[in-house]
Amino acid sequence: MSAESTFIAALRALATHPGARGLRDDAAVLAAPVGRDIVLTHDMLVEGVHFLATDPPGDVAWKLVAVNLSDLAAKGAVPVGVLTGCGLARGAEWDAAFVAGLGRALSHFGVPLLGGDTVAMPEGAPVALGLTAIGRVAPGGAPARDGARAGDRLWVSGPVGDAGLGLRIARGAVEGPRRLLKAYRLPMPRLALGQAIAPHVHAMADISDGLLIDAARMAEASGLAVEVDLDAVPLSAEAVALAGADRAARLAAATAGDDYELLLAAPGEAAKRLLTLCQPLQASLIPVGRFVEGTGLALHDRDGTVPLPASLGYEHGA
Amino acid sequence: MSAESTFIAALRALATHPGARGLRDDAAVLAAPVGRDIVLTHDMLVEGVHFLATDPPGDVAWKLVAVNLSDLAAKGAVPVGVLTGCGLARGAEWDAAFVAGLGRALSHFGVPLLGGDTVAMPEGAPVALGLTAIGRVAPGGAPARDGARAGDRLWVSGPVGDAGLGLRIARGAVEGPRRLLKAYRLPMPRLALGQAIAPHVHAMADISDGLLIDAARMAEASGLAVEVDLDAVPLSAEAVALAGADRAARLAAATAGDDYELLLAAPGEAAKRLLTLCQPLQASLIPVGRFVEGTGLALHDRDGTVPLPASLGYEHGA
Repeated sequence: MSAESTFIAALRALATHPGARGLRDDAAVLAAPVGRDIVLTHDMLVEGVHFLATDPPGDVAWKLVAVNLSDLAAKGAVPVGVLTGCGLARGAEWDAAFVAGLGRALSHFGVPLLGGDTVAMPEGAPVALGLTAIGRVAPGGAPARDGARAGDRLWVSGPVGDAGLGLRIARGAVEGPRRLLKAYRLPMPRLALGQAIAPHVHAMADISDGLLIDAARMAEASGLAVEVDLDAVPLSAEAVALAGADRAARLAAATAGDDYELLLAAPGEAAKRLLTLCQPLQASLIPVGRFVEGTGLALHDRDGTVPLPASLGYEHGA
Repeated sequence: MSAESTFIAALRALATHPGARGLRDDAAVLAAPVGRDIVLTHDMLVEGVHFLATDPPGDVAWKLVAVNLSDLAAKGAVPVGVLTGCGLARGAEWDAAFVAGLGRALSHFGVPLLGGDTVAMPEGAPVALGLTAIGRVAPGGAPARDGARAGDRLWVSGPVGDAGLGLRIARGAVEGPRRLLKAYRLPMPRLALGQAIAPHVHAMADISDGLLIDAARMAEASGLAVEVDLDAVPLSAEAVALAGADRAARLAAATAGDDYELLLAAPGEAAKRLLTLCQPLQASLIPVGRFVEGTGLALHDRDGTVPLPASLGYEHGA
């Protein structure tokens, strides 16, 4: 059995949902969710771009699932299934650890593997992975990125910057606690929170590229300006211990990306409801700014206006 | 503007469907098709594996769309939209030609671009592409690969082997007519035919890996044996002119793959209905064998039993 066949056999063992047709058919087939909107997202992870060659393959699989489910979370969607595109390049041991991690992630989130494709990449090529996640949401219930209104508060669902520090730890640039490394390698999509609060927000997105750039994009899409209070941006205790909490550390945290916290716009009167919804989920929401008429991003802290950094976050695209 | 940003701007120009949200949101959102099943497929195309570095990028884009729509065709599905995963590696000119070809293909098939992801691959890496196609079909109406019954005829929707010869032409191994090259680079998914005949077949698949291997897989999945009459396997006039029609040429055609014709199992009494449905579509269906009790593939021609070739087609997997 070729390495590819072994991998596919392991994938098939995961694909127990009847809609997956045992990964032996041309396509997956599902009943359309009655009276629901379908939410679809596809994100890629490429070795040397989105993950390090030294990252454990099981963690790479987790991240592949998590970053896509995070997009569903930002639309308030319940995951229905995933399709994987696996361009393999690192040999049987890597592949086996990857598929084991994929199984753990799908099992953790209760999401079925429905289909996909597997390719042995040419000699010397990096691992190139893609995942399509499908979700369902109440009709019209998926918050857009462009729905913020003037006067809305900007909220974030948890500390930012941990993953950025975790990446520095993974690269060997600094030493730091395992929890920060975990934030980089094993992000946790805010599915339950996203589903709970989606009906009460005007706009929502996940923070994949950095709090500042994602907030600026939400403002731009909504035809507004956004003001962010850098002192309000939540930092974890571990991040403060490692990197401090001064202006430079806060700017680094707010531009690092890979956080997968939710970022949302909601009117002031929704605040109490949002915080009440958080409690049973052991989730948090922290107000970090507000949307106002105008364009662009303005940043301030206790000392006044903060000049915008050269980069607001990771710029790539679609 | 970076090469990646230029590419994404060009993609956005294609993404005019409201569900795509201008490719500026975390995910695409569609109303679920009422009273329909959803069909989902994801196939990859990697440079050096599925296409040649010398293949025109616009043709690569066409093929990426076509091979995925062919999977929908095999399930009798109407395309609803696609998401792309584009790992780019060849520079701005290649990217621009690719996105132009993507636009032509999507426009030709009337399928909206709904979302996806774009990545600049690391230095030296090949282009790595994925596409997820979503379709809809009547509830329970997607034929499975494993539904063939003993006594069913095996049908194919058109000549096989043209793409295999086209690949040899593209590689410079032989000289031949443009139509064969086109069969390799610009395959045509049998969408209308698949939709028309799906209610009348027991099993259906597209021929991506080779008629013999795909027929053997259909038989195996259905718990049956399949007998193929090699003389009945349709060859195009161009293929016969280039490679002849003897046993070796027919075996090459039936194992070459990349044909994207439909392969199906249907009872004898459905023959007239199937052929009637073909006519207004200017499509064809040719009986090439039958399913019987047992296991495996048996091959014969006018001279009797044909020993099975070492390879029945392209073996990879999911």
